[in-house]
Amino acid sequence: MMIYFDNAATSWPKPEEVYREVEKVLRNCGNPGRGGHKMALESGRVIFEARQEICSIFNIKDLMRVVFTSNTTEALNIALKGLLKEGDHVITSSMEHNSMIRPLMALKEKGIEVTIVKANEEGKIDPEDIKKAITKKTKMIAITHASNVTGTIIPIEEIGNIAREMNLIFLVDAAQTAGVLPIDVERQNIDLLAFPGHKGLYGPQGTGGLYVREGIDVLPLEEGGTGSKSESMYQPDLMPDKLESGTPNTPGIAGLKEGVKFVKNIGVDAIYQHERKLTKMLIEGLEQIKEVKVYGPQEIEERVGVVSITLKDRDVGEISYILDRDFDIATRAGLHCAPLAHSTIGTLKTGTLRFGIGYFNTEEEVEKAIKAIEIISRKTF
Amino acid sequence: MMIYFDNAATSWPKPEEVYREVEKVLRNCGNPGRGGHKMALESGRVIFEARQEICSIFNIKDLMRVVFTSNTTEALNIALKGLLKEGDHVITSSMEHNSMIRPLMALKEKGIEVTIVKANEEGKIDPEDIKKAITKKTKMIAITHASNVTGTIIPIEEIGNIAREMNLIFLVDAAQTAGVLPIDVERQNIDLLAFPGHKGLYGPQGTGGLYVREGIDVLPLEEGGTGSKSESMYQPDLMPDKLESGTPNTPGIAGLKEGVKFVKNIGVDAIYQHERKLTKMLIEGLEQIKEVKVYGPQEIEERVGVVSITLKDRDVGEISYILDRDFDIATRAGLHCAPLAHSTIGTLKTGTLRFGIGYFNTEEEVEKAIKAIEIISRKTF
Repeated sequence: MMIYFDNAATSWPKPEEVYREVEKVLRNCGNPGRGGHKMALESGRVIFEARQEICSIFNIKDLMRVVFTSNTTEALNIALKGLLKEGDHVITSSMEHNSMIRPLMALKEKGIEVTIVKANEEGKIDPEDIKKAITKKTKMIAITHASNVTGTIIPIEEIGNIAREMNLIFLVDAAQTAGVLPIDVERQNIDLLAFPGHKGLYGPQGTGGLYVREGIDVLPLEEGGTGSKSESMYQPDLMPDKLESGTPNTPGIAGLKEGVKFVKNIGVDAIYQHERKLTKMLIEGLEQIKEVKVYGPQEIEERVGVVSITLKDRDVGEISYILDRDFDIATRAGLHCAPLAHSTIGTLKTGTLRFGIGYFNTEEEVEKAIKAIEIISRKTF
Repeated sequence: MMIYFDNAATSWPKPEEVYREVEKVLRNCGNPGRGGHKMALESGRVIFEARQEICSIFNIKDLMRVVFTSNTTEALNIALKGLLKEGDHVITSSMEHNSMIRPLMALKEKGIEVTIVKANEEGKIDPEDIKKAITKKTKMIAITHASNVTGTIIPIEEIGNIAREMNLIFLVDAAQTAGVLPIDVERQNIDLLAFPGHKGLYGPQGTGGLYVREGIDVLPLEEGGTGSKSESMYQPDLMPDKLESGTPNTPGIAGLKEGVKFVKNIGVDAIYQHERKLTKMLIEGLEQIKEVKVYGPQEIEERVGVVSITLKDRDVGEISYILDRDFDIATRAGLHCAPLAHSTIGTLKTGTLRFGIGYFNTEEEVEKAIKAIEIISRKTF
């Protein structure tokens, strides 16, 4: 049986009800919002309920402000490109994934100014540095909630307060935190929340979404059939249709609905406590091995269950391969699509070996992983 | 048991192997291209095989030129927005779906000139009219392979020849034809093919794709993590990664792979023959009912299995509702996201009742549908 520590990429396994719901909807549903027959209506109902679940877990008041996307990347692209115009200034951080940095670099070429605030070597961002970066042209602060390399939690409350105070749009990338840390778009002043469906919310791959606060007018990245205002050659202005064109991934969204229900039943806090306990065990165990360097914050409270390590000058790709081949342990090695974060922590050349902890991991699995790294550290293969 | 005639929106049922493969991959796979462990490699293999199947059914020579998208709409948006620039001219038709028209109207606002060539009242396009519309600025001909309102087949070979002759990019929307009519990107001179996964290819909703001919450089609509060139803050230039950012819909794509295999096993020609026979039966039966008007070409050879009708001045929405409620027959009523097509055939005010025929429909079902319309035509409910 595979020991799966690649939950930061995609969670596995999914709850049984997710598998069942995907299959049920795939076998029984039609095309939502595009027909009046029972099957099409049933699809519409499934998607409506999924929006409700998303609202409930993030404290979103109006379900029409939840847009489903195929992943977090799409959500970030819609948010950034639908709002930033030539001459605008946006502040981001050096801990971002390429899903944030690459669209920003594309926008830079179109005359949008981008400031990248540097984190320290533990991946921590000082909100004061963000405040200092604000200029008259600043329109948006766009930042991750936690690093996918070091697991460092970014203080989004404080940054959200700065955004509100300075009347800036606040975009949060919840790729590593949706379902794992409490997210409350009201309390945290989040204007735009990009989230994955297939990580901490335990839905299928191919799902994700974007919350857009009322009053924020995001231009669509894609236009097309929406099932609404069919008589018009122009994209309708009503949400969520404005940002959701074409046939949606109904079975995937149905699975996501069940994933969110699962998370709500366990409780985000209980999931976080469990993952934190395992993260602490893993870090403490790995730190006993003298060749191992663990990256990210010292304080367990300042990180999610993402643990990056290196083993002296050993090739991390080889270690990940051995873990898989000889120990049936799935990890990920490399740059994790976040070159700036690796520059920040000093691993751009080597990459890191990453453990991504999920709710289904156990203490026994963590012990086995520590043991395996210890064995690998002692011999050359 | 539901009689399903909404296959033009999404096909139903799917072949059993599609359901099984989606479940298998959902239960067993990791994140493709983003990890070296067995599960991630298995995901990569599944997607690789899906690309091979797509290549095989459309005679695409290089599988790196197949990009997976979440639907046809996304594929069309990528193709149009990634190629057309201010000052360019594009020719399209009055039979297009809003997935083509709405992005073109958005591009028009950015200084792209759009010519809409008018079809006749049967939905037929004269290739000569397209030729006449070509100017020095024309960069692309973008056209549907068959109307989703009238079922009219557009002569894409002839139009493809014109495009090749005049050195224009030829984009084909295969939403109603992929898996139903023979498509050969070489023989038909197709440079860009946008196709759905969830209609005639019998994959799950949330799948689709875009073929991009070698030598055509489409700018990405979305940038993000690609698993390739992770060290770079810029989108990689290599295909298909350039146009595929973020975690893909692996279970959906896996299902699509099985759908394409199913279509290849039956044979596109056999599927078309079956659907044509049922279409002929349906039209001939409906034409016996004096209140019914059938739209689209007279010649059965000039249409796919999409049949639009009106019943004198009866509300088509009501008829669709009665078909569903009293006869368990699923159809679709309205404008089918194609207002220009309705203008063309004179049904913009009323909409039409649409039957979308699929491979799983039977003669018996067609008979029941004719009978139901006949009964409805005789009484007021």
